[in-house]
Amino acid sequence: MDKEKLITEYDTVALDDENNALVIIDQTKLPGKTEILKLTDIKDIWDAIYLLKVRGAPAIGVAAAIGVYLAAEKIDTSNYDNFYKQFSEAKSYLASSRPTAVNLFWALDRMDKVVKGNKDKSISEIKQLLHDEAVAIREEDIWVCKQIGEFGLTLVKPGDGILTHCNAGQLATVKYGTATAPMYLGHERGYNFKIFADETRPLLQGARLTAYELSESGLDVTLICDNMSATVMKNGWVNAIFVGCDRVAANGDAANKIGTSVVATVAKRYNIPFYVCAPTSTIDMNTKTGADIKIEERPAEEVTEMWYKEPMAPKGVKVFNPAFDVTDNDLISGIVTEYGIATPPYAETLKEIFEKKKNQR
Amino acid sequence: MDKEKLITEYDTVALDDENNALVIIDQTKLPGKTEILKLTDIKDIWDAIYLLKVRGAPAIGVAAAIGVYLAAEKIDTSNYDNFYKQFSEAKSYLASSRPTAVNLFWALDRMDKVVKGNKDKSISEIKQLLHDEAVAIREEDIWVCKQIGEFGLTLVKPGDGILTHCNAGQLATVKYGTATAPMYLGHERGYNFKIFADETRPLLQGARLTAYELSESGLDVTLICDNMSATVMKNGWVNAIFVGCDRVAANGDAANKIGTSVVATVAKRYNIPFYVCAPTSTIDMNTKTGADIKIEERPAEEVTEMWYKEPMAPKGVKVFNPAFDVTDNDLISGIVTEYGIATPPYAETLKEIFEKKKNQR
Repeated sequence: MDKEKLITEYDTVALDDENNALVIIDQTKLPGKTEILKLTDIKDIWDAIYLLKVRGAPAIGVAAAIGVYLAAEKIDTSNYDNFYKQFSEAKSYLASSRPTAVNLFWALDRMDKVVKGNKDKSISEIKQLLHDEAVAIREEDIWVCKQIGEFGLTLVKPGDGILTHCNAGQLATVKYGTATAPMYLGHERGYNFKIFADETRPLLQGARLTAYELSESGLDVTLICDNMSATVMKNGWVNAIFVGCDRVAANGDAANKIGTSVVATVAKRYNIPFYVCAPTSTIDMNTKTGADIKIEERPAEEVTEMWYKEPMAPKGVKVFNPAFDVTDNDLISGIVTEYGIATPPYAETLKEIFEKKKNQR
Repeated sequence: MDKEKLITEYDTVALDDENNALVIIDQTKLPGKTEILKLTDIKDIWDAIYLLKVRGAPAIGVAAAIGVYLAAEKIDTSNYDNFYKQFSEAKSYLASSRPTAVNLFWALDRMDKVVKGNKDKSISEIKQLLHDEAVAIREEDIWVCKQIGEFGLTLVKPGDGILTHCNAGQLATVKYGTATAPMYLGHERGYNFKIFADETRPLLQGARLTAYELSESGLDVTLICDNMSATVMKNGWVNAIFVGCDRVAANGDAANKIGTSVVATVAKRYNIPFYVCAPTSTIDMNTKTGADIKIEERPAEEVTEMWYKEPMAPKGVKVFNPAFDVTDNDLISGIVTEYGIATPPYAETLKEIFEKKKNQR
């Protein structure tokens, strides 16, 4: 799997069966250098997750599933207890790489259930089942993103201008991304979208990741600073906005990267529809409203020093650096999930989405 | 004049009569280093303007007036024609330092009129008149800013949170600034404002200049990224917004640094008054609406490379980098001038401001 394939196929995390390797793009080198890593050793995989070479909740989950399979595959025993002991060690080790990443535990638990649920099978059969489960987790992630893309694509038309904020792209998932899924699917179908990517201060995920992955994949993307959104919207260049999310509350309020609610507020002024792309795994019906979502504050240095040749603000100046904000549901035109698009009133339509999910399973 | 004095007195440009020197802060060294320059040679003054050591339209005008006086002061002749020839050369030389700076020509023309209008006086008398005119230009700038501060101060109360964008501060004028004038005057009177300064991408004037000058002067300032404005407003931390402007149209539309209209749009959602601080010199009654204001586009590298250790976006990515935006008049609660505050409908109230100006002269 060479660079060309990985980027054009939009795959961020893969299993190379020939070489028994986890294949990822080293995201710490972006956007300067596209370096594909093939990792076979569990220690290297742990490092890759810990050092953010692979990042984004879905991508981390898939990488961990593949990682624990690759570790299991190497266990040289025919005794189940011996096998499970070594498997458990590998699992705990990988789980320690990003202790706050929910998808990491979720994926490793699914792998654990395969081993525990097949005690009666031979070790080589269990290894094959682990392989298949890792592949299934990966395939499901692709399916979810692709479905979001299909539903999202019904909201736009060829030639449309689309604005996005931060990176809810293929680099955070296996393929397609969430907010970017309609863009990639549209690109495959010749839609010729004009994409605007907010650079997304302070960590610049829009400049470093979104602008990178879209342009590498041949899409027409223009980078802007976050404060230029009103200008491109007022100019009539934007027909729809797609963003990802970290959590959606039961009333449709959506927490996402800082600045998302600014984009939504400006979009409302210019009557531009604002869509949140949300796998149902990010919709938390136990969170009543956005007010119940705690917003992480991060270090001042991200604003004043990070990336810079020298500090860009007076030494010791006070900084407020919230990592996320909540976009109120009245600013959101639709929430695009893998089971369809919820529209206001969200308290009802999000329930319907989960009904659909239950029935389709 | 030492560092302490310059900063605490809010003076950015001054004439040091003892040493016959133009005194400025070297703004290219900010915020890392506060370096006061005393310039006596016209070539050094030209460099200071050209290299943006002194910047901001009003500050440049005053520096040029002082500069051409200092050059005239050194002219060693008692013959008027000789004197005027050398004075003209100095004037043309300084005018070439920033060929698009209107205030530069305006200030130099005022100085020129002094020489031309006093042919009958002795050279030493003309030198004294030039000195007095430079001092007058400087004092008038302080008066305009202070008046804006006084009027602005009526719009807020002690303890208020105030947000500003870019740098319309003392560093762009002689003293007080425009948007910052109410803050400095309030500070002198113990108002204890809580100021929020947008960093203002891509050139970071808010981080480098506004956060610097306010914190150096002892005000309570918190730096935020541009995309965090909705969060501080939603949190109830902002009672009013003051920004500067580059040009105000006859209908009240205001062109200012890129992102200003985003702040105004968000402020409207949270019912926070949004004020534009505008010396009447920036109000152009011949510009009908904001649509008639041409917006300068600047190089991509400002967004992708400037300030950074390495490029922060993929090589060759398209960038849209408008330097200004227009805030529509319906988003503006008031336009604060040195002759009072205009409120909607601006087509009428701005005319009234100019009537007041005519009558008070």
